[in-house]
Amino acid sequence: MRELITIEQKVLKKNGDIAADNQRELNRRGMFGVGLLSAPGSGKTALLERTLAALAGRARAGVIEGDVQTDRDARRIAALDVPVVQIVTNGTCHLEARMVQEALSRLPDDIDLLFIENVGNLVCPASYALGEHRRVVVTSTPEGEDKPLKYPAVFRGADAVVINKIDLLPHVPYDIDQARAFALQVHPAVLVFETSALTGAGIAAWVDWLLAEKRRSADARQ
Amino acid sequence: MRELITIEQKVLKKNGDIAADNQRELNRRGMFGVGLLSAPGSGKTALLERTLAALAGRARAGVIEGDVQTDRDARRIAALDVPVVQIVTNGTCHLEARMVQEALSRLPDDIDLLFIENVGNLVCPASYALGEHRRVVVTSTPEGEDKPLKYPAVFRGADAVVINKIDLLPHVPYDIDQARAFALQVHPAVLVFETSALTGAGIAAWVDWLLAEKRRSADARQ
Repeated sequence: MRELITIEQKVLKKNGDIAADNQRELNRRGMFGVGLLSAPGSGKTALLERTLAALAGRARAGVIEGDVQTDRDARRIAALDVPVVQIVTNGTCHLEARMVQEALSRLPDDIDLLFIENVGNLVCPASYALGEHRRVVVTSTPEGEDKPLKYPAVFRGADAVVINKIDLLPHVPYDIDQARAFALQVHPAVLVFETSALTGAGIAAWVDWLLAEKRRSADARQ
Repeated sequence: MRELITIEQKVLKKNGDIAADNQRELNRRGMFGVGLLSAPGSGKTALLERTLAALAGRARAGVIEGDVQTDRDARRIAALDVPVVQIVTNGTCHLEARMVQEALSRLPDDIDLLFIENVGNLVCPASYALGEHRRVVVTSTPEGEDKPLKYPAVFRGADAVVINKIDLLPHVPYDIDQARAFALQVHPAVLVFETSALTGAGIAAWVDWLLAEKRRSADARQ
């Protein structure tokens, strides 16, 4: 086991180096990178569809889609006329920086906001930086309030948490104040948004934050 | 990368050996092992709570709970007066056979049906046999129909699929016939159950199947 751990650390270190290269490349091309992480079926792609619609005319968006199999998500994004590259990991449980590097080389330059949707997984993606400027964890009301406690690493590494599917609040046993408290317990002062990708509730505040963070990031580099 | 893969194969082979030992140990003690796999928040523990209540008087149950962090699930099971061992993986994205071996040594002998609830993850647990006699994937209606297509390995390795949270069908964009078709597409002839752990719908048929499979497994060994 010790040998395996050593090699894994080397792989992780190299991933970190490539992630730093990716962020430099994003900065060079004037792109602000946002990583989206969640469990399978939390609504990352639906949130993205709503977000892209709300960004229309305010920023040029692009998307990198990560999935274990299928290009279903990329086809949903492409239908919105937004540039998208699908990464199929073929069994790997997370995106790695080298996959994003390859995807970046295939995207056009005129993108302001680049979303990187990871594989649906609340464990493995936490350990792999991709070069994104902000990381966002999406959780949804049917999943229950305790996900931050049960999967703390991914919530600790996030700049913001989006609680999605708030339209289902009348129908699921979910205490949203408790969910916020659990998120803050594992990551004090993390930002929490409440959205419904189905109805559009909460999307405006979330999109305003994305645009403000993009400006803040650009200002910080000047 | 080749080096890492070689070592992983060795680790996997050893896991398979321990899994075989686990199944022999289950057989020796007259236990029928059922592995439960799902995304985070699909309702594995709630389904288990309903299942344990329905089994009362029909079979003696025991539970091994796997989580990245917290013993929240084990406390829910223990409240039902069912023997339970919690495995906290501390960051590892799946259970391994050696963890189950250790947990088995702490469980009493008078258990007929032993449930092994894996870490909430639709990718990594697919690669690790634990010694269970049957594997069941739980998916839930808010997650969308396409999970079998996007996470095929775990569905291919399952003896049955439980579609949980059918009480939410009026409130979510989910075509249950399409979901069944996708499950059968990646795993022809897999059994599909429909349940609501919240209302109890579908639990009777699922529990009948568990008891029938237990009998069938015992008969096959005689």
